[in-house]
Amino acid sequence: MKATVMYGAGDVRVEEVPDPVVQKPTEALIRVTYACVCGSDLHPYHDLGDTPEGRRMGHEAIGVVEEIGDDVRTLSVGDTVIVPFAWSDGTCPFCRDGITTSCVHGGFFDGAPSATQAEKLIVPEADGTAVKVPAGTDEALMPSLLTLSDVYLTGYHAAVQGQVGPGKTVTVIGDGAVGLSAVLASKQLGAETIILMGRHTARTDLGREFGATHVVAERGDEGVAKVMEITGGEGSHVVLEAVGHMPAYEQAYGIVRPGGTISRVGVPQYEEAPVGFTSLFGKNATLTGGPATVRAYLEAAIPQVLDGTIDPGRVFDRELPLSEIAEGYRLMDSREALKVLIRP
Amino acid sequence: MKATVMYGAGDVRVEEVPDPVVQKPTEALIRVTYACVCGSDLHPYHDLGDTPEGRRMGHEAIGVVEEIGDDVRTLSVGDTVIVPFAWSDGTCPFCRDGITTSCVHGGFFDGAPSATQAEKLIVPEADGTAVKVPAGTDEALMPSLLTLSDVYLTGYHAAVQGQVGPGKTVTVIGDGAVGLSAVLASKQLGAETIILMGRHTARTDLGREFGATHVVAERGDEGVAKVMEITGGEGSHVVLEAVGHMPAYEQAYGIVRPGGTISRVGVPQYEEAPVGFTSLFGKNATLTGGPATVRAYLEAAIPQVLDGTIDPGRVFDRELPLSEIAEGYRLMDSREALKVLIRP
Repeated sequence: MKATVMYGAGDVRVEEVPDPVVQKPTEALIRVTYACVCGSDLHPYHDLGDTPEGRRMGHEAIGVVEEIGDDVRTLSVGDTVIVPFAWSDGTCPFCRDGITTSCVHGGFFDGAPSATQAEKLIVPEADGTAVKVPAGTDEALMPSLLTLSDVYLTGYHAAVQGQVGPGKTVTVIGDGAVGLSAVLASKQLGAETIILMGRHTARTDLGREFGATHVVAERGDEGVAKVMEITGGEGSHVVLEAVGHMPAYEQAYGIVRPGGTISRVGVPQYEEAPVGFTSLFGKNATLTGGPATVRAYLEAAIPQVLDGTIDPGRVFDRELPLSEIAEGYRLMDSREALKVLIRP
Repeated sequence: MKATVMYGAGDVRVEEVPDPVVQKPTEALIRVTYACVCGSDLHPYHDLGDTPEGRRMGHEAIGVVEEIGDDVRTLSVGDTVIVPFAWSDGTCPFCRDGITTSCVHGGFFDGAPSATQAEKLIVPEADGTAVKVPAGTDEALMPSLLTLSDVYLTGYHAAVQGQVGPGKTVTVIGDGAVGLSAVLASKQLGAETIILMGRHTARTDLGREFGATHVVAERGDEGVAKVMEITGGEGSHVVLEAVGHMPAYEQAYGIVRPGGTISRVGVPQYEEAPVGFTSLFGKNATLTGGPATVRAYLEAAIPQVLDGTIDPGRVFDRELPLSEIAEGYRLMDSREALKVLIRP
């Protein structure tokens, strides 16, 4: 089959690799019908060192079940399923807490032999991981359903962890697909004021359609000043940080209101950061977030897509066949595309 | 009057200073009847540079109102009041949120001209700040009521911010008076398992009386391993960090359960700390805490002391007159005393 392999920064190739096979009774083999490129794929696209063995890419997928292991109970051959970016058994103590990304039998598709930017993939812990899409679902809804494998529910996770709710002022840092998803999720959760920090008009326009009440194009100290002005000098109850770089974190603690919360879902490209008296502690700010526990939200989100309550698939502004995925990476890296849908 | 002045590390003196006078209509003049030395006073005791002008010390007090400004409405001369470690107006947006330590007209007694280890002090924003003790309250309860100015309610703040509740496993790092208060508060809030990390038997024994179900004397990696063992390898839902030094923070993220919360009330003696994928982010751990919003909890806590529900004053194991406060600092620094009560 064909799969996407990265050999170093900027070097994305589609290659013939061995077909994956079901090896454990808890696995399922999926033929991928929809995949996509994630903003987080751009991190290795920028800085992956020389990797002669190649790194398999992709962690978002919808597909059709082709084969199941003997122990798989909830899936049947022919089912269309959403595959979240992490697998999880659904039964361990952390899964029961809803922290599915910390499953004791879990893992991440990204970089795994079974990454999703490919024609087929193996889903480990298939009963716990894959979620069926109702038979007969309109194909036009598939892009929105695909966002439930990561991007929309990552924005949603940010908002849930940040305790977004009615009456709250929320600031979203980042106008990428996760940031826009965080805007949409904040609107769903009843936020009163939603400030989107971003400078790409095409994106912030979609952000406004998703529910942003204000757009701040400024960054750094100017951006902080602007948000403080909008919030009457009080700061933002919740800051959703959907970038992952230090300047975004610095903006976050600059604008968070005393007693407020910074919720991060941009994978931090740093390990150490300010958390002392002058950044978080002095104003009793809370720092939360992490890899989105997509699987814990999936069942509740599917009906919202099916009934049109949310249309998160609007973040896809380009579609390419798998054979042209390298162009998809290029388009997203150059910001010519917001998010690229891939049809294997 | 006499007041405590620090001139450098280890150099604590009681000196004659001008009597404070009411200068603003919102102030009250208090004659201090009970004060104490705080663990946080030991930070300057260790590292205050040469300070020829002197630094006034103390931020915990009970006293009697001697004079009030023209605008003070809730206090009368002769009232006995608890003075929390920060003043606040009670009416600003942050006070209304309960984040009284971020009051726009607020400030901290520690280091201010009106610090509390003295015979008298001025309480700014007196209506918002000072809380009356019912007339006729038994003097024997005053040490416990004094802990509501900081130490007990700081432990309580840690527990509230950490969302301690029934069924939760809580680990308290630090067996100082704040740590022991955090144990007592966690018990009050219904925690099921309370692990106290500390190595001073006299203190951990009081911790057990306050509600600790386990004591871990080990530190660092060994301490982490011990807590993981007690929690069946899952980690602690809540970690209350009552120290403020980096090794305590490192222990905290080592033992926090995926999806759990680290709540800090030990004033951080660092600004940068690990918060990336391998410390907080990867396991969706939340970092919260800050200066305790004591004032927001005070009214509800007083009846709990009066009716004997809590007896946080047990953290005081020594009493000295103000004239001997330097000895109180020495006793706490050498860990010969847990917390020293001062009678001006």
